[in-house]
Amino acid sequence: MKIKIFTTGGTIDKIYFDRKSEYQIGDPQANGVLERANVVLEYEVESIIRKDSLDFSDEDRELIRLKVESTSWERVIITHGTDTMVETAKVLKNISGKTIVMTGSMYPARFKDSDAVFNIGCAFTAAQILGPGVYIAMNGCIFNPHHVRKNVELNRFEEKIT
Amino acid sequence: MKIKIFTTGGTIDKIYFDRKSEYQIGDPQANGVLERANVVLEYEVESIIRKDSLDFSDEDRELIRLKVESTSWERVIITHGTDTMVETAKVLKNISGKTIVMTGSMYPARFKDSDAVFNIGCAFTAAQILGPGVYIAMNGCIFNPHHVRKNVELNRFEEKIT
Amino acid sequence: MKIKIFTTGGTIDKIYFDRKSEYQIGDPQANGVLERANVVLEYEVESIIRKDSLDFSDEDRELIRLKVESTSWERVIITHGTDTMVETAKVLKNISGKTIVMTGSMYPARFKDSDAVFNIGCAFTAAQILGPGVYIAMNGCIFNPHHVRKNVELNRFEEKIT
Amino acid sequence: MKIKIFTTGGTIDKIYFDRKSEYQIGDPQANGVLERANVVLEYEVESIIRKDSLDFSDEDRELIRLKVESTSWERVIITHGTDTMVETAKVLKNISGKTIVMTGSMYPARFKDSDAVFNIGCAFTAAQILGPGVYIAMNGCIFNPHHVRKNVELNRFEEKIT
Repeated sequence: MKIKIFTTGGTIDKIYFDRKSEYQIGDPQANGVLERANVVLEYEVESIIRKDSLDFSDEDRELIRLKVESTSWERVIITHGTDTMVETAKVLKNISGKTIVMTGSMYPARFKDSDAVFNIGCAFTAAQILGPGVYIAMNGCIFNPHHVRKNVELNRFEEKIT
Repeated sequence: MKIKIFTTGGTIDKIYFDRKSEYQIGDPQANGVLERANVVLEYEVESIIRKDSLDFSDEDRELIRLKVESTSWERVIITHGTDTMVETAKVLKNISGKTIVMTGSMYPARFKDSDAVFNIGCAFTAAQILGPGVYIAMNGCIFNPHHVRKNVELNRFEEKIT
Repeated sequence: MKIKIFTTGGTIDKIYFDRKSEYQIGDPQANGVLERANVVLEYEVESIIRKDSLDFSDEDRELIRLKVESTSWERVIITHGTDTMVETAKVLKNISGKTIVMTGSMYPARFKDSDAVFNIGCAFTAAQILGPGVYIAMNGCIFNPHHVRKNVELNRFEEKIT
Repeated sequence: MKIKIFTTGGTIDKIYFDRKSEYQIGDPQANGVLERANVVLEYEVESIIRKDSLDFSDEDRELIRLKVESTSWERVIITHGTDTMVETAKVLKNISGKTIVMTGSMYPARFKDSDAVFNIGCAFTAAQILGPGVYIAMNGCIFNPHHVRKNVELNRFEEKIT
């Protein structure tokens, strides 16, 4: 088994910016997380976009879809900004034969008490066990993209009551 | 769904001890990890043993088995020292109807670059998805206790070639 | 000997804010830093302002001056945003009989690799040793406010060539 | 002004060792601390010993003295194990014209809440300001080696009541 990780920016990879600076996305953090965990499974990290997900265009989402479709690896993780993660997940529907797990974090991975490492652990495990489909791994749960929302007030993902 | 976490000591909960001090296990770290990840699933952490797993007696393992059997929760995580994790896993075989995931860490959770947070993320996800049985979540993989060993030289768990 | 610490906000106390959120200053970090260092000297932390120093008004600076003048403690540290630290330092000139050390950080104290803890260590030591006057402790140096500038490109304080 | 830093091992540079492993001192941590603080003063780190200070021989102390005497730099920091720091400090008496500041930490620098970064900040500042002599910078204070002891129960340095 082996896992492909595409990084697309978002809070998880953010570096600090002060009031005078432009907004910035730093280097992908997933690689360092997996190295420090001394993961024995084969994996590969590829940075394809570096943006706040609020700035994603349709073209960005098409690029992500294309990348997932064209990789020969069956198990894929996408790190992504949380604000439009659900929207991108829906664009990835109907890719047959692929297990796709999206994750990100509420706090930059460079923060001391960030949720980034935990979330990548969750996504890495879900990507190995689950069958084909698109999933969102956030706040310790595995969500169906059609039944989840980001609760901005509580700063977490939770099941959407429909 | 809800998850019960039993902590039993081990490296993951170790605090620093200098040359003049006695060996010590500190407070369970799992609780803090799950709080910082802002986990939305119901869970409960219970500390039942505080030992280096090299010091576990048969009675300790019986206590762990008893605790797992007697909880009404179906999904259980056990944090445990790495040196005899496999041995304890075998004692937990044949508990019907329970998903039991064991984890721990190679470096204390109090270390900056510890694998503890990642491993708890992995275990927390595996405990939700997998069916009844005993599993070991270490180094990014989900192992069958009968086909895994701790490679002391490389300081990691890996599949046992039989 | 005892040391009074006034906190006024700035990057050192910033918490993460995403694109959708308002800018925010969190709880003062100096207290936690001094506790973790297990400092044996008497000290007291008092939060008087919580702002980015770019937003400081003349009234804010007057408040700081008033607070420093009215404390009976002779040795004072002020944590402060870096962008106008020098400006505030100049307002504190001519307070007789007080050793005043200003510090802050380029990265929030909540970041893993922040300079905050080091800088507070520097300021805490300078405040004990130096005689009356106003000093800026940043980037490992003790600067005279009249001969220092923030180099925004290199993101550090350095001697001003005049 | 410039500062020479000799590292000699001790808790500050310890890496984790489990029950089965030999005791180990890792790479000196002072360098990383000073880099992350983006220090603008000239400094140089040189590792001369890697031992728990309980294992220091008279020869080790002679080596430290020799190194301090033979450097042309006037301001010197020595990172050192806490258990015999005072003993070594006394061996460094009567080196004329040199400001020598010893420091170390109660918890390894690799720990999340270690006192190492704060202590190095204190030592770095003391080494710049103080005149010739030997000093111990621990727990936020600058001690005279003849009037300080390590209180093992409270795990801190404090003034020795004589």
